[in-house]
Amino acid sequence: MKRFLDLADFSREQILDLLALAQSLQDHPQPHALAGKILGLVFLNPSLRTLASFQAGMARLGGNSFVITPGRGTWQLETRLNAIMNGAAAEHVREGIPVLASYCDALGVRAFADGKDLDSDLNEALFGMIDGLCDKPLINMESAMNHPCQALADWRTMDELRIPTRAKFVLNWVYHPKALPLAVPAATLHMAAMRGMEVVVARPEGFALPPQIMAKARLAAAAAGGTVSETSDRAAALAGANVLYAKEWGSTLHYGDVEADASLRADLPDWCVTERWFTHAAPDAKLMHCLPVRRNVAVADEVLDGPRAVVKREAFNRLAVQMAVLHRMLA
Amino acid sequence: MKRFLDLADFSREQILDLLALAQSLQDHPQPHALAGKILGLVFLNPSLRTLASFQAGMARLGGNSFVITPGRGTWQLETRLNAIMNGAAAEHVREGIPVLASYCDALGVRAFADGKDLDSDLNEALFGMIDGLCDKPLINMESAMNHPCQALADWRTMDELRIPTRAKFVLNWVYHPKALPLAVPAATLHMAAMRGMEVVVARPEGFALPPQIMAKARLAAAAAGGTVSETSDRAAALAGANVLYAKEWGSTLHYGDVEADASLRADLPDWCVTERWFTHAAPDAKLMHCLPVRRNVAVADEVLDGPRAVVKREAFNRLAVQMAVLHRMLA
Amino acid sequence: MKRFLDLADFSREQILDLLALAQSLQDHPQPHALAGKILGLVFLNPSLRTLASFQAGMARLGGNSFVITPGRGTWQLETRLNAIMNGAAAEHVREGIPVLASYCDALGVRAFADGKDLDSDLNEALFGMIDGLCDKPLINMESAMNHPCQALADWRTMDELRIPTRAKFVLNWVYHPKALPLAVPAATLHMAAMRGMEVVVARPEGFALPPQIMAKARLAAAAAGGTVSETSDRAAALAGANVLYAKEWGSTLHYGDVEADASLRADLPDWCVTERWFTHAAPDAKLMHCLPVRRNVAVADEVLDGPRAVVKREAFNRLAVQMAVLHRMLA
Repeated sequence: MKRFLDLADFSREQILDLLALAQSLQDHPQPHALAGKILGLVFLNPSLRTLASFQAGMARLGGNSFVITPGRGTWQLETRLNAIMNGAAAEHVREGIPVLASYCDALGVRAFADGKDLDSDLNEALFGMIDGLCDKPLINMESAMNHPCQALADWRTMDELRIPTRAKFVLNWVYHPKALPLAVPAATLHMAAMRGMEVVVARPEGFALPPQIMAKARLAAAAAGGTVSETSDRAAALAGANVLYAKEWGSTLHYGDVEADASLRADLPDWCVTERWFTHAAPDAKLMHCLPVRRNVAVADEVLDGPRAVVKREAFNRLAVQMAVLHRMLA
Repeated sequence: MKRFLDLADFSREQILDLLALAQSLQDHPQPHALAGKILGLVFLNPSLRTLASFQAGMARLGGNSFVITPGRGTWQLETRLNAIMNGAAAEHVREGIPVLASYCDALGVRAFADGKDLDSDLNEALFGMIDGLCDKPLINMESAMNHPCQALADWRTMDELRIPTRAKFVLNWVYHPKALPLAVPAATLHMAAMRGMEVVVARPEGFALPPQIMAKARLAAAAAGGTVSETSDRAAALAGANVLYAKEWGSTLHYGDVEADASLRADLPDWCVTERWFTHAAPDAKLMHCLPVRRNVAVADEVLDGPRAVVKREAFNRLAVQMAVLHRMLA
Repeated sequence: MKRFLDLADFSREQILDLLALAQSLQDHPQPHALAGKILGLVFLNPSLRTLASFQAGMARLGGNSFVITPGRGTWQLETRLNAIMNGAAAEHVREGIPVLASYCDALGVRAFADGKDLDSDLNEALFGMIDGLCDKPLINMESAMNHPCQALADWRTMDELRIPTRAKFVLNWVYHPKALPLAVPAATLHMAAMRGMEVVVARPEGFALPPQIMAKARLAAAAAGGTVSETSDRAAALAGANVLYAKEWGSTLHYGDVEADASLRADLPDWCVTERWFTHAAPDAKLMHCLPVRRNVAVADEVLDGPRAVVKREAFNRLAVQMAVLHRMLA
């Protein structure tokens, strides 16, 4: 495996193989599998789980890693092509990425959406450039529109919880003070569709996921025997739901327009998940979230601290699935 | 050992065993003792010695580590229970700590005092919460009221220097432009008391250590055959002293009141240790300090650069004693 | 080898030996050569290549490393002797360096020029102090006036490209919005002189390298059979050039005077390397630069993206030569 950028690049069988490898590495640790291998980790944006779990994963397989956080002890990186670099950024990704790739055996990169132009972000303009600059195996640690490590961990989490592949999975918009990227909702939607679930996207008006994202997920659902639909009727969506996957994201109607987005979300603070949301859900419905989660803003304490919440388990699984990806790439 | 949070949690014999293990690991290195083990290090506050020595200690024992510094490349962490998280912090320790603990075999956490409410800090409200959230071995890398790693290193330093257990140990307040936490003075006091020394706390009026801290130390002193007293008469305290342990801390009379504290310390810049302070001390009296030390503010160059100062040796010993703690926890 | 501070500290034969070791380690990896060894890395200034390549180099040789970046999660370090430390810096290098050195087997330090007093910077006042404080092997990861790791990588790059030792090497000033240090130009000049090349320094008036730097290079050139000259006539310098080594640096005429420097460079933005600069150069002339490089400010895209540019290869070689230095110091 030379690239781990998007679950959609793999067949369902390949994903199931990766999940089986994750389980196998848990049951039968291979503490020397990656001896002498080095993983470079480049974080253009903050991280907690990804930062810690990739370092821990390499160490558990006998390998090493180093971390570069541009702008924090490292030069700020320019990402625009043809830029006249007389501003804050001292180095261009066109030099930075190939150089860092040369020091390691695989590179993980986190580069959030620019959040200004939807088409550019949908096209993964920046991550596409990074992909083209990296001659080593490359892992997407969250790009403009994807977060395959999170999606794979969430898939494993549902398998562990024996949530049926045909179960009802509601990707539910929740409140956040600011517009967050579409990476996790897009990746989550695709994962649930590819798993063959009955997927419903519940979001307020103005927050519909881009048609390209929806269409891609529908294709995956069709291949896996599942469905994808969307609604702004939260109650209808949650009726009979087996999973409520809560996620914050920015308005797509006003993409890149901070003020219009803020004005739209000003009326939506009640999109904070409480126990009441589960009244008509399946009795043992689960609450999922990729973390970090703002307590009592996106999800209430009563849910996060109750038996429905499996958010920590999702995070624990980041380590397991990423070790499988690293093993497949480097062993 | 599942917790290393406070010297007071251990018997004197257990502490002596740890110190013996530190010596043994120095005499007979065990470069593979922690092969495959991972230490997670979470720094909610700055660090130099702790950051470097824990990483080095794990490496010297064949293990690995990763570092998380919330707010610096990682989400800022919320620590208040029931917080409505609509501010700067994106993640709560209730998620962050268990998740990070799941990636490693032991966790070290630094979380300074909040510095607003003395009772809350004395109760170790934050570290107690972290303790309850961590299902892996946990190391206190400095909490509101404790710094057991520093205390253990200081104990070893005095043993190395053959300072008798019955020697006179003066914990001496020194000047600093700002109110610093009580963690090191409290831990140092307890360590010297537990070692059985004749301990005197010399501090200006308004800077008395909290009665709970003093009482706890008196109990330890009684058990070990030592004494604990306090005074604002610096000259009396230093007469015949074998050790002057210099330390800066905030006013307890005005705990959490920045202005009142500043006004109180405005008259105290002469509490900067000079050679003259040792006029009536024991001839070979030592100057100890946990570092970092502000030269010519807390301690004068002439003392730090002279033969009395053993501050670097104290810091060197951080590595030795922490390796013993890690070995006991993880080997 | 106890110190790697300046190529000038070594004979030409010793440098060639190091380069041979770099090649040997590439051809015949020694993944356990530094097992159990720890490298401490202290960055008083930002870094990308140095930060990543030293960590990767230690890992490739089986060793470990830790990173300290004062002011970023670590106390800001005071560097002035006799300072009254009542400002932002909490710790002095007089404590910080010996303590960090005690935790590792070798220390790498980056400490840029202060940029205020030329004589002080020429005397390496700060790095000299650090040198005196460190009782472990020490590596200069860029000081006020030196960057031997970069210079060694550049030497190797020219060897790999079969650029004759007698070729014409032009160290060419290029534009940058701010005054940058003299470390790389000084180290590069010395390296090319020591390699025996026909070295020309091309720079605008007011940017001549200090006479001490020029004289030291001339001595090295004489010993190696090369020459060193300087000019402000760019076209004359580049006629027949085999290598254009582009580098930004501050005015030496107005050293430490930000405004006078800014006013001098205000007229010089056309000192940005374009393809036209190579009109009268040797047909296969190469463009070198230590990186980071500001695209279309210091060097145009057309050059950096064309076949002349070997800047990434120079950066790749950092890993190879630093592994040789580490191996010589610690194996």
